[in-house]
Amino acid sequence: MNRGERFTITYQISADSKESAEKMADRIRIEQTVEMPPETVPDKAASSFAEILSLKEHNPGQWITQISFPFSIIGSSITQFLNVLYGNISMLEGILVKDVDGLLFKKLFSGPAFGVEGLRKSLNANARPLSCTALKPVGLSTPDLAERAYQFACGGLDIIKDDHGLADQPSAPFNERVISCAEAVRKGEQVSGKKTLYFPNITTSPDKVLDRFHQAADLGADGVLICPQLTGLEIIHTIAGEKILPIMAHPAFSGSFILQQNQGVAIRLYYGKLWRALGADSIIFPNAVGRFAFTKETCRQLHKCMTDPFDGINKSFPTPAGGIHLESVPAMRELYGNDTIFLIGGNLYQQEEGIEAASKEFQKTLEGGVQ
Amino acid sequence: MNRGERFTITYQISADSKESAEKMADRIRIEQTVEMPPETVPDKAASSFAEILSLKEHNPGQWITQISFPFSIIGSSITQFLNVLYGNISMLEGILVKDVDGLLFKKLFSGPAFGVEGLRKSLNANARPLSCTALKPVGLSTPDLAERAYQFACGGLDIIKDDHGLADQPSAPFNERVISCAEAVRKGEQVSGKKTLYFPNITTSPDKVLDRFHQAADLGADGVLICPQLTGLEIIHTIAGEKILPIMAHPAFSGSFILQQNQGVAIRLYYGKLWRALGADSIIFPNAVGRFAFTKETCRQLHKCMTDPFDGINKSFPTPAGGIHLESVPAMRELYGNDTIFLIGGNLYQQEEGIEAASKEFQKTLEGGVQ
Repeated sequence: MNRGERFTITYQISADSKESAEKMADRIRIEQTVEMPPETVPDKAASSFAEILSLKEHNPGQWITQISFPFSIIGSSITQFLNVLYGNISMLEGILVKDVDGLLFKKLFSGPAFGVEGLRKSLNANARPLSCTALKPVGLSTPDLAERAYQFACGGLDIIKDDHGLADQPSAPFNERVISCAEAVRKGEQVSGKKTLYFPNITTSPDKVLDRFHQAADLGADGVLICPQLTGLEIIHTIAGEKILPIMAHPAFSGSFILQQNQGVAIRLYYGKLWRALGADSIIFPNAVGRFAFTKETCRQLHKCMTDPFDGINKSFPTPAGGIHLESVPAMRELYGNDTIFLIGGNLYQQEEGIEAASKEFQKTLEGGVQ
Repeated sequence: MNRGERFTITYQISADSKESAEKMADRIRIEQTVEMPPETVPDKAASSFAEILSLKEHNPGQWITQISFPFSIIGSSITQFLNVLYGNISMLEGILVKDVDGLLFKKLFSGPAFGVEGLRKSLNANARPLSCTALKPVGLSTPDLAERAYQFACGGLDIIKDDHGLADQPSAPFNERVISCAEAVRKGEQVSGKKTLYFPNITTSPDKVLDRFHQAADLGADGVLICPQLTGLEIIHTIAGEKILPIMAHPAFSGSFILQQNQGVAIRLYYGKLWRALGADSIIFPNAVGRFAFTKETCRQLHKCMTDPFDGINKSFPTPAGGIHLESVPAMRELYGNDTIFLIGGNLYQQEEGIEAASKEFQKTLEGGVQ
């Protein structure tokens, strides 16, 4: 039998004996491929079977297994790959998807159209970290949001994104908001003398995302914000393939996949490899010292996954967010290095001198010393 | 201030003191709405705030809080509702979304276009449970899959669905497969003398689902199978709104949301209310005695949620699956009652007498005694 091209997925299994671990690995091998008792699989479909390459105890009660899958069960569908990766077995306890070998990504995914280099180029910022803030809160009218965008741009911020809670509410409908905020940012650029990018939130029903993406471009946006786990993951790959605007990915609704230590998808694989491969030019993740639960080590590793060489796939800009304060930027810069977008939302609004002056201060911290 | 129309979400919080629970409830109130320090929210947006209605200890260390949200932060977007329900807080430990009040569903969601009554009507099966099987495995050619579909239809099964691992692989491309399997089922109906429905799997990239749905209808399918958590949830509502084919929803990739006791979305809310409201005419869920981890009580409650009166929203057909055996059908019927689709995959293929005879036997068990 021609075994054809294959890829390997590494799973961590929690089990109290070698026998249980073997049973679970075999379960994965079947469940994610033919999904029927092995003896009922006809010879003609035998090439669909996965194959267990290895199984060993990693820590007490934790087993690592490498399972080889044929590309033929994927076809060329990223969504079907996700199904093979963690479809049915997402409903079993004690399985963590640890890693996927690089060839899979190279074969199925195109990655970010712009990436770190593209965003740097459009901002003429060759080496320093980038600044980003969020337009908020939901409930403000379009003119009020545009006024804020103007002030942020006057302060010289690099990227102004919509809060991910700004959708198409009557208080500031999408089209109206994009037109006004993009205009406001262009005016602010006249004051600051530097480029500022505006990224409206295009998160909406999966079937409408592509239209809203093009609308954003037509109405003057410089990029978009999207929540991949709300829209369906492969849509990111579709819009990235249009190569017209950079994409900032937001982790809303994705926590269930990555919060458990022994279950779900490993954080580095999920945000660091998968979202990068899908084409997110910037990936927002919960900052270590912010209001979410990631550790510094996790954040450092995530940063590495998003920027390390990866089979020719462009780098994603790591974008730590959540509870970053103006005064913590130097420490954060030390933690993450220069290939980083620092996203400060709430704390810029808290500064007594107002958001324009606060933005200037933020920007100064990042521009100092490197460029 | 006009507080406008509102809806209530019930969250369970794991906390070791009343103070911690209060802090977390307040956190949810802010994080899911204005997402900025309360003192920085301008008066003009004050109507966007959520409000904590109650907080009480339910079990030791488990607190129940009811939080009231303004409809104005949703607009009319189901995706934005999902973001408010569990967007950012999906990245916090110890929060379980328990319930949402009915008015929300009535206002935003249309539910199944066909539902239990519609499927019964198309099969002329007024009171008995329905039978269902899965075409498998991936890797078989179109003629081989069609031959299996023919045999199942000759055996008189009610519904033949694609395995959710059949996508658009070269071994049996979507269009070719749908044409051949639908034809085969029509021929089988001539033999059995009764109606059989064929549901191909339309799970694909979110932006292509609507096209594939229409394609399925054009090529002769009688319904579709889809994995909502792979395609993005709101797409189900879009295709249900077309009112042309019934939809069977498959739980692949959704386990992370519902497996934890103290985290994620309560199983009943997720499959029972949300997927029903989104418009799934049939909802597949892991059967209690099968190869997944749901208890009998959970399954009974899920069944109830899918079929209880729900603000005028049509019933979804509860479809327990996973490890059901031919001989366990009578016991399962006792557990679930008649408003149930029993999905037997692997075990039909295991019967020595072949799948046509096994299908006849399965069908006979369901038709006996009631109609």
